[in-house]
Amino acid sequence: MLPSRQPVQPATPVSAMRLLTDRELSPEAAAIFADIRATRKTEYVNNFWRALAHDPAALKRTWESIKQIMAPGALDAKTKELIYIAVSVATGCDYCIASHTASARAKGMNEAEYLELVSVIGMASETNRLATALQVPVDEVFLIVNEAGR
Amino acid sequence: MLPSRQPVQPATPVSAMRLLTDRELSPEAAAIFADIRATRKTEYVNNFWRALAHDPAALKRTWESIKQIMAPGALDAKTKELIYIAVSVATGCDYCIASHTASARAKGMNEAEYLELVSVIGMASETNRLATALQVPVDEVFLIVNEAGR
Amino acid sequence: MLPSRQPVQPATPVSAMRLLTDRELSPEAAAIFADIRATRKTEYVNNFWRALAHDPAALKRTWESIKQIMAPGALDAKTKELIYIAVSVATGCDYCIASHTASARAKGMNEAEYLELVSVIGMASETNRLATALQVPVDEVFLIVNEAGR
Amino acid sequence: MLPSRQPVQPATPVSAMRLLTDRELSPEAAAIFADIRATRKTEYVNNFWRALAHDPAALKRTWESIKQIMAPGALDAKTKELIYIAVSVATGCDYCIASHTASARAKGMNEAEYLELVSVIGMASETNRLATALQVPVDEVFLIVNEAGR
Amino acid sequence: MLPSRQPVQPATPVSAMRLLTDRELSPEAAAIFADIRATRKTEYVNNFWRALAHDPAALKRTWESIKQIMAPGALDAKTKELIYIAVSVATGCDYCIASHTASARAKGMNEAEYLELVSVIGMASETNRLATALQVPVDEVFLIVNEAGR
Amino acid sequence: MLPSRQPVQPATPVSAMRLLTDRELSPEAAAIFADIRATRKTEYVNNFWRALAHDPAALKRTWESIKQIMAPGALDAKTKELIYIAVSVATGCDYCIASHTASARAKGMNEAEYLELVSVIGMASETNRLATALQVPVDEVFLIVNEAGR
Repeated sequence: MLPSRQPVQPATPVSAMRLLTDRELSPEAAAIFADIRATRKTEYVNNFWRALAHDPAALKRTWESIKQIMAPGALDAKTKELIYIAVSVATGCDYCIASHTASARAKGMNEAEYLELVSVIGMASETNRLATALQVPVDEVFLIVNEAGR
Repeated sequence: MLPSRQPVQPATPVSAMRLLTDRELSPEAAAIFADIRATRKTEYVNNFWRALAHDPAALKRTWESIKQIMAPGALDAKTKELIYIAVSVATGCDYCIASHTASARAKGMNEAEYLELVSVIGMASETNRLATALQVPVDEVFLIVNEAGR
Repeated sequence: MLPSRQPVQPATPVSAMRLLTDRELSPEAAAIFADIRATRKTEYVNNFWRALAHDPAALKRTWESIKQIMAPGALDAKTKELIYIAVSVATGCDYCIASHTASARAKGMNEAEYLELVSVIGMASETNRLATALQVPVDEVFLIVNEAGR
Repeated sequence: MLPSRQPVQPATPVSAMRLLTDRELSPEAAAIFADIRATRKTEYVNNFWRALAHDPAALKRTWESIKQIMAPGALDAKTKELIYIAVSVATGCDYCIASHTASARAKGMNEAEYLELVSVIGMASETNRLATALQVPVDEVFLIVNEAGR
Repeated sequence: MLPSRQPVQPATPVSAMRLLTDRELSPEAAAIFADIRATRKTEYVNNFWRALAHDPAALKRTWESIKQIMAPGALDAKTKELIYIAVSVATGCDYCIASHTASARAKGMNEAEYLELVSVIGMASETNRLATALQVPVDEVFLIVNEAGR
Repeated sequence: MLPSRQPVQPATPVSAMRLLTDRELSPEAAAIFADIRATRKTEYVNNFWRALAHDPAALKRTWESIKQIMAPGALDAKTKELIYIAVSVATGCDYCIASHTASARAKGMNEAEYLELVSVIGMASETNRLATALQVPVDEVFLIVNEAGR
């Protein structure tokens, strides 16, 4: 069973940019927050957007890109979250791991899937370093010819 | 359409460990190569295993772990390859990107899926750095209580 | 003096996605290429865009973001390129280092500036690891209070 | 406006090496602390140096290098701090992000500059991964000929 | 002198997976915990294993690999811990830095060795980035010939 | 047995900075090259220094630091090279892996030691990511009390 997500009292939140409350938003930022709420069907807007809201252009650009990219397409939304978590673990972004693990659960990731995800991330990380350490040359059969286009 | 994988003449292969030919394998390594061929239903054994074969214990351990982890389970084999590619891109392992992109194609990844994978990796990388730069504190609702177990 | 950038015969270009020539572009991708040429005032479109052109939506999104972000603003265009190079070195993206070093030169980076850039990147990388290895706690004076906003 | 830097009560400071107080310094370390105070025109010596002070030779080497590299030269001191932050975000060093964001502010970085810095870091991180994922070959025009020197 | 390791009251432990107590372990996980205790000659099982215990197959695979790899062989156990710390610092894994610094001490690492380890990690990180920034080509004398084996 | 290091014809050397030949060195750089040759007891100066020689101050600073740090001390010279390789693999610096693998061999690293080094790097990389993915909290027993010094 997946652990219940009981809220705890975290350490005093500290960030490089103060998190903006709703009433501090510029009109442009407020419009993006409204879209986040409508798209996600929840009143809760997480801290990432509250930090980014200091820069309404960046907020708009990032939200519109993520909305477009994370929507179901050739890959379903849950698979995209698994990929997102994999990147976040490899980058070492604790915030992103926490928020996208929550998103993946909300999109249906169950405990068995989560545990396999973790194992694949670990395995890939090990073989990544082995291949790098051994400086293994890429096999010819994996390559693609290209004439530099013009 | 996915690019055809026409073999090209690569730069002279160079590695930290010389790639072993089949006739140079120790009996233990040869047994693993036989299992790789049987499991993957192909005579081709890629360079990664030929470099690792200098250390039969590492070869055996790595192959058995990867065989166990990458087999279809709660997640299907193609999804696992997508996760593998995501980690490899984030780590910057060119060998692993090339070999697992080939594996993912062999397991059914089509061009549209590949392109969405790349976009998710790019998007996650951007927001990873934004969250890190802004030092965004994790939202309480994403946390899990723990009493340090004994 | 900055080294002259004499073109050489590189290894056969190889990529995960074949580079698209102009005549292979979709209408949407062709429109973006036209904007790249107009904005940069050059006929030359570099390989990054030719690989990305397989996905016109990604091409459009990435180009429009980069055009917006890299334009002179509070920071001038050359300073933005220095920051871009710093990130690319820390990520280990050889393509990005090569292309943005060329961009930075085109925007006025001279040799002395380039050499200082390299030294700052090296120094930061060293102290990054020292601080991480020693697990140095952040000084109180560097922190910002936040009440999780709502 | 930049958030005010009100000190908060942080979690109990924890590090791999206990932070040294002034009266615990060796004479060599004390001399370096005196130079840090004189150079920076402040009594405050931040935790990084207090952890490093266990190794007076490393303290001296690191301080002298950083003093030399971060001094205004072809690049001004503020630009150097922006580059430093970019590397620190890409490395994922929270301590370094916090301390050099403070330094950059002290050297005149305003909020608009900070926000653009964050956007450039994010954009570069995304395109770094896209170029790596797509294995884009470096354009000939970006290369430099070299005869291996002797 | 190495700092004494006095236990402190840490922030409320928070993890993506709740840490399992001994009485929550599956029989397979309990058997691994028994082997960890017997091998390490201590009752204490650290949090890493308590998080991993949700997946008994991963717990078994990881423990058996680490037991095999970290045992004294051509390299002694302390040297292996130094290498482990170096990788953990370069990856930016705070948990791993803390736990393997403790392991290295337990296996005899003294303060002078620890301080030299930290300096080597810092130096290597700096020159890594310098070589990457400058795109230094590998010297012929460092290369190894390979005929792609079959 | 370690693979023989037969020189091969590499791809045309390409770097961001042209490699300097001996007769292009400034007097300051020439003095450092003389010290490199005297210290290492070989006429051969590898490409890293030839690229860095464009900036004599950086050349001098880097060489003097590396000479000090890599000399035998509490840790012997070979162990320091193993740590250097581990960092270089984790950073993904191909130049550094090649050059320091050669250095480690020259200082006595045998094949069995090399193979164990590679396995430890791989194992650490895997558990690093597992601990990060699972967001394992640091055990109290691994922490150190600190009063922020003054």
